[in-house]
Amino acid sequence: MSVKGNDKKLAAEAATDYVKDGMTVGLGSGSTAEWMLKRLGALVKDGLNIKGIPTSVKTESLARKHGIPLTDFSKTATVDLAIDGADEIDGQLNLLKGGGGSLVREKIIDAAAEKLIIIADQSKMVQQLGSFPLPIEVVPFGWEMTKKQIAAYGAEPKLRKEENRVFVSDNGNYILDCSFGKMVNPESLHDTLKSMAGVVETGLFIGMTDQAMIGQNGKVEMIGDTKKDDWWYWRE
Amino acid sequence: MSVKGNDKKLAAEAATDYVKDGMTVGLGSGSTAEWMLKRLGALVKDGLNIKGIPTSVKTESLARKHGIPLTDFSKTATVDLAIDGADEIDGQLNLLKGGGGSLVREKIIDAAAEKLIIIADQSKMVQQLGSFPLPIEVVPFGWEMTKKQIAAYGAEPKLRKEENRVFVSDNGNYILDCSFGKMVNPESLHDTLKSMAGVVETGLFIGMTDQAMIGQNGKVEMIGDTKKDDWWYWRE
Repeated sequence: MSVKGNDKKLAAEAATDYVKDGMTVGLGSGSTAEWMLKRLGALVKDGLNIKGIPTSVKTESLARKHGIPLTDFSKTATVDLAIDGADEIDGQLNLLKGGGGSLVREKIIDAAAEKLIIIADQSKMVQQLGSFPLPIEVVPFGWEMTKKQIAAYGAEPKLRKEENRVFVSDNGNYILDCSFGKMVNPESLHDTLKSMAGVVETGLFIGMTDQAMIGQNGKVEMIGDTKKDDWWYWRE
Repeated sequence: MSVKGNDKKLAAEAATDYVKDGMTVGLGSGSTAEWMLKRLGALVKDGLNIKGIPTSVKTESLARKHGIPLTDFSKTATVDLAIDGADEIDGQLNLLKGGGGSLVREKIIDAAAEKLIIIADQSKMVQQLGSFPLPIEVVPFGWEMTKKQIAAYGAEPKLRKEENRVFVSDNGNYILDCSFGKMVNPESLHDTLKSMAGVVETGLFIGMTDQAMIGQNGKVEMIGDTKKDDWWYWRE
């Protein structure tokens, strides 16, 4: 395994220490989250009693393969913990996500979770978000107009394609990959974009992360804000 | 024709006076807008050269029936004028819309339009929005969680159904009809709701209307804010 691959695996496995018996767990998407699914599958085999809510069709299929029992929002009203990856993470644990195209389901589940742990290798940590183009999920109707309005904010939106066909999200929408460059105020940018008619969601996850497990050179660093945790529990 | 039906017809016809040769016109949905489509069809027959962008599948079909040439956002980047109905209109010309289920397409087109004229009979004018339940379009995935989060803001969201089946919007989404009661600050309410993960759009159209044509007892009153018009053109 590559050093980077091993760091992802270590971060993912460290996060699963927070999964306790009886929990409903939001199951993230992406290459790091796949290590988490593999580990949870092994723990379930050893007797851990949990239910997972997958953040993408792909994660759902992998979770089944690893024998993780699944549930959905028609059966449960709470998510105790979500463990998810990210494309970029800044020092305030704000995230840029959506490279895999599952940003809407990820955000619904991560936002619903009592606690969100992000898992990644060190290469995802950045000073400022925005080197990675920001994925924005838009309603197919009028997407050209929505693209024009996003472009007015300084981005170069590109309609995501897959094998020369327009990429369609799990929700039947399109994704515009928008190069804004380094973001001075990602929260304000997200608010502006999300407020637009035609925009379903953006890949900016602001103020949602409680804790991050970051793998680097065979070790895992835990980044978390105790004060924020307090605030989080106070919020309940 | 009923007095109310005649008032709708008069308001719709008065709005079509603002449609000029060469314009791209956003075509609204609903019973009042249907009078507008009929009138525009007659004007086109008499030589008026316009292109329409319909705000719903139903309006598209009616526009074709009346012989109005159509276009879409793949062919045009501007909408000169949109004429649309509303379920409620307050004194600031803020709107509550979406009873017919076309709120997303309506908002994309109405927001894109250089000018928005609302047509209605007097019964739609209210002191405060909110007697009519607010339609909120949500992503089907996790709609139960989105409903729970909306309910926390004091509404009683009901999943819209049609003949005992879940109603699906033109965009493949669900609609929650949310009784908030009279709204003290509809702008703030809209911002809060639209910012939620899983919410695609709300039926509150705030600060978008340039002018309203209101039919009452066989006459049409024009309500418009000149200052707002100035601001609107300055915005371009």
